[in-house]
Formats: sequence, structure tokens, C-alpha cells
Amino acid sequence: MGLVAVDWGTSSLRGARLDDAGRVLEEKSAPQGILAVPAGQFPAVFDSVFGDWMRPADSFCLISGMAGSQQGWAEAPYETCPADLPQLVRRLHWIEKDRIAIVPGLTDDHGGVPDVMRGEEVQIFGAVKLTGIASGLFVLPGTHNKWATVENGRVTGFRTCMTGEFYAVLSQHSILGRTMQADAPLDEEAFLRGVAAADNGEGLLHNAFGARTLALFKRLSAPALASYLSGVLIGEELRAQPLKGAEQIVLIGAPALTTRYALALQTFGVGTRTLGAEATWAGAHALRTACLQARS
Amino acid sequence: MGLVAVDWGTSSLRGARLDDAGRVLEEKSAPQGILAVPAGQFPAVFDSVFGDWMRPADSFCLISGMAGSQQGWAEAPYETCPADLPQLVRRLHWIEKDRIAIVPGLTDDHGGVPDVMRGEEVQIFGAVKLTGIASGLFVLPGTHNKWATVENGRVTGFRTCMTGEFYAVLSQHSILGRTMQADAPLDEEAFLRGVAAADNGEGLLHNAFGARTLALFKRLSAPALASYLSGVLIGEELRAQPLKGAEQIVLIGAPALTTRYALALQTFGVGTRTLGAEATWAGAHALRTACLQARS
Repeated sequence: MGLVAVDWGTSSLRGARLDDAGRVLEEKSAPQGILAVPAGQFPAVFDSVFGDWMRPADSFCLISGMAGSQQGWAEAPYETCPADLPQLVRRLHWIEKDRIAIVPGLTDDHGGVPDVMRGEEVQIFGAVKLTGIASGLFVLPGTHNKWATVENGRVTGFRTCMTGEFYAVLSQHSILGRTMQADAPLDEEAFLRGVAAADNGEGLLHNAFGARTLALFKRLSAPALASYLSGVLIGEELRAQPLKGAEQIVLIGAPALTTRYALALQTFGVGTRTLGAEATWAGAHALRTACLQARS
Repeated sequence: MGLVAVDWGTSSLRGARLDDAGRVLEEKSAPQGILAVPAGQFPAVFDSVFGDWMRPADSFCLISGMAGSQQGWAEAPYETCPADLPQLVRRLHWIEKDRIAIVPGLTDDHGGVPDVMRGEEVQIFGAVKLTGIASGLFVLPGTHNKWATVENGRVTGFRTCMTGEFYAVLSQHSILGRTMQADAPLDEEAFLRGVAAADNGEGLLHNAFGARTLALFKRLSAPALASYLSGVLIGEELRAQPLKGAEQIVLIGAPALTTRYALALQTFGVGTRTLGAEATWAGAHALRTACLQARS
């Protein structure tokens, strides 16, 4: 009967058609992230993009990501950590009973301050299946990075770091952007110099200013400064993580980002295993399997 | 003969006319920061704003701030720390010999990464005169905050923190701004909650996200969230400073900012003494006095 797996995020919409064994038969994407969908138009956009895949009577679709937020198609709940696959299955938000469901997000609490993810939970469960690593640190770099701890296949807790968004607003809207080529390819030396600078104990608010003064004194070029700032931010992020004793971390995301994290983690003596979109599809397949088990 | 003291910054132009004893006779300001002055138009803008004060043949003017930068009237040098008043006098950049000069900025080096200030050095020397505190920590909150160490009247070193600019870009351009009333008046409780959160060891990139989730879960109102984010940023800044053993810090700046720093520093057990624009005028007067001493 197969599965239509959909990852509907803030700025993009992606889907894959899988067979019963979880193999990807076909993928597609559309520039219709939830911010580009007018209120009430989610069913129409879904039909226009995935209508052909949903034609068979027994077709089944799982949607993860920001489509389950207040601003999305329908608000799905947040499941509280620790959380495993069967819990997500019990909390599916059905758009059409036994046919189209939105996967709940996860929430965690840090001393009265909540944390949230939507979509990454499916990628994490997929990565557990694909790597066979049931306990460890799973990191999903993006606009709002997630650092999740997994124990025996359950997500026991996680933290968000706004590293991607900080890079975007600083390079586009702060004084740092004026002397920086924000979209320059990675300059490894400048990047690692930034990672090292982040560890000087002076804090991000000071260290970011180095990307201004190194430009003023012409010590780094505009393309290199972009890598330097990226290194300062990622180095700052890593400093706060529980890396002690971690030998290998599972990185899930786009290669442009995972490459940087792998490089920076090397300087902390931590190895990495990297996955991309396949983690999303594997996670949806695992959820689908758990759905069938729950019903039988 | 008196003195015309001018503080010409990125976004504002302020001046004061002082008598020989350093008393302020008159102040004025204009919305003509250096970003609003077309190339080549600095003399004309200066004449239009301060021409009447400069009419007497023996009038004397000292200009500090970004007017001395590459994008300003004329590039004044940076004096290297440690630096005192006589050093600044020797490095004055004369626009008109013995009549109009731009005060040099200061630079410091942190492991190969330079740091810079322009304008704050005059405020610091003025604060030393006004308070009689010749050794201590002098803090100038603003877009790019300066933390300067003064020993026996010399600035021995300093660091910049981009706290003000981080607040501006995060509240105006990041997702945090969507649920926040960035210009709300200070909510002390929310502010101090942010200051405390900054000390949890998780880092700014994570803690800033609390201003998103506390909104999502409706635990803080839009006005309170602005104070919370401000507290997270200022708390992060204070964490990295050499506050151990500091009993009193001299704060120089606008009351809207110095109030927040005084509040946050209280939680670290550090007292404050606060100065405003008078520090600039007192610093210019001290420089003028050092000029006369150097000539005689």
C-alpha cells in the first residue's frame, strides 16, 4: 500500500513516495512552505502537489514539520520528552482518519522555559533506524538547530540553538554584513579560526565583533569573513553542548551545513556520521510501521 | 577662549560650548550623523551647525567619534592601549591647525584580533575627571558597548560587545520580533528573569530561543518578552566580564540603557556610578587643558 511522506516546513514543501519496504520510489518538492500558503488553502496546495500520489484508495500520508503549527494546516499537539515512536503514533493528528495525518512535534522543559521541535523528531527516528545507533547525540543544523539526546530509541530531551538564524540576521542586517560576502563558499582556515576564537571565554557578543575589526584592519577578505563569523557562531554553539565523552555524533541536514559541523566537531575530537533527506523518509516509514503494529 | 566640543557619531551629531573652566554654556544636536553626510560635505555641515560658535578668532574645537573614521570627515589614527590623555593630544588629527582637531580613537589587541573605539575614549577620560575614579572598570552601553579598564588614569585595555546591535537585529529581523513589542518600556521582572536565564551555561544561541517559546506557550506577554530578551543579552554580556572583585563600575550612557546595566549588575553584587553626556564634555575639556599644557 506504500506511504506518501511529506515534510512541510516554514519555507519549503518536500515529499516522497515509498514502497512497503520503505524504499523511495519518487521525490518532489515545491516552493510552498507554510508561509506561502494562504489560510484555508492547505488542502488545495496538498492536492495540487500530491493529488496523483494520493489517488489509490489505500494511500496513506504522514506530514511532519511546521504544517502542524498554529500557522499551518492544523495544530498538532506537542508530545513531551522522553518520547518514542509509539507515543507519536498515539498522538497523530488526523486530517482524514487512517489516510492523512500530521505528526506531533516534541517539547522539552528547561527550568520553566519550554523548547520545541516540529519535523526534526521524524528525522531523528529515521536516523536511529538507518544508522542502528539507538543511544547518542543527534544534531540537526538549520535555521533553528536541534541537539537531541536519544536513549534506547527514545528522545529523552533536546535543545534548540538559533545559530542559523543568528548568522542570517547578522550577515544581512548588522554592520558585520557590510564587509562580508555572506554567500561565499566555505574557507576552512577562516572558519576554524572562528571556531577557535569562540573558545576564548569572552562570549559571542564580543567575538562576533572580530568579524568587524578583522575587516577594518584588512586582515581577512570579504569571503573569508563570512566563514570566520560562521565559525565563531558554530564554535559558540559547540562550547555549550555535552560533548565530553561523546565519540560520535549523528548529523542530519544539508551538506553545506553538516560539513561545517563535522569540521568544527573534529577540533573537539568528536567524530560524526552524516545523513540527509533520507532520514526524513526513513522516519516516516518507521512511523507508518508503528501505526500498522498499533492497529494489529 | 573656551571650547567647542563635538561628538559626531554614526547616527547623531551633538555639540557643546564650554567656558574656560569647562562649564557647559550651551548644547545643540542635529540629525546629521556621519551616515547622513554626503562625501565632501563634512565642512559644510560643520559650518551650518557650529559656524556661529566658531566665529571668534580664538575658538577651538575638538571632534570625537566616527567623524574620525574612514567614512567620516578625515581618518584620524588609532592610539594603541595603554593610552592616556597626553598621548591623545600628540596624535590629534588637525583639520585646521590649532583650531579644529579630530581626536584619535583607541585600539587594543586580543590575540591577533583588533578592537576599536572612537569617541568613547573622550567619555572615559571625562568620567575619570568627574568621578575622581582613576582606576576601575568603565562601561559604555550603546550599539557596540565598550568595557574599558582604567589604571591611574590610563586606558589599559578594552573590549567591545555588540549587545545593542544584537538586540536591534534580533528584535527587528529574527523570528523573535514577531511576538515581541521591541519598544516596550522596561519590565524589571521579565528583564531579571532573562538575566538569570543567561547564567544557565547553555549559551546565548540557545537562551535567545526562550523568547520564542515563552511566547508560543503564552507565558510572557509581548512587552515582557522584549525585556526578557534584553535581559538574556545583557546577562550574557556580564557573564564574560571581569566582575570578580569589582565593587563599583562607572556606567556612561543614556539612562534607558544604564538603568538596565545597573539592575543587572546588582544581581552580580556590583554597584554602579552613572554618567551621561556630561562625561563627553568633561573629556573634551580635559583634552583641551592637556593641549594647552603641551604647548606651554
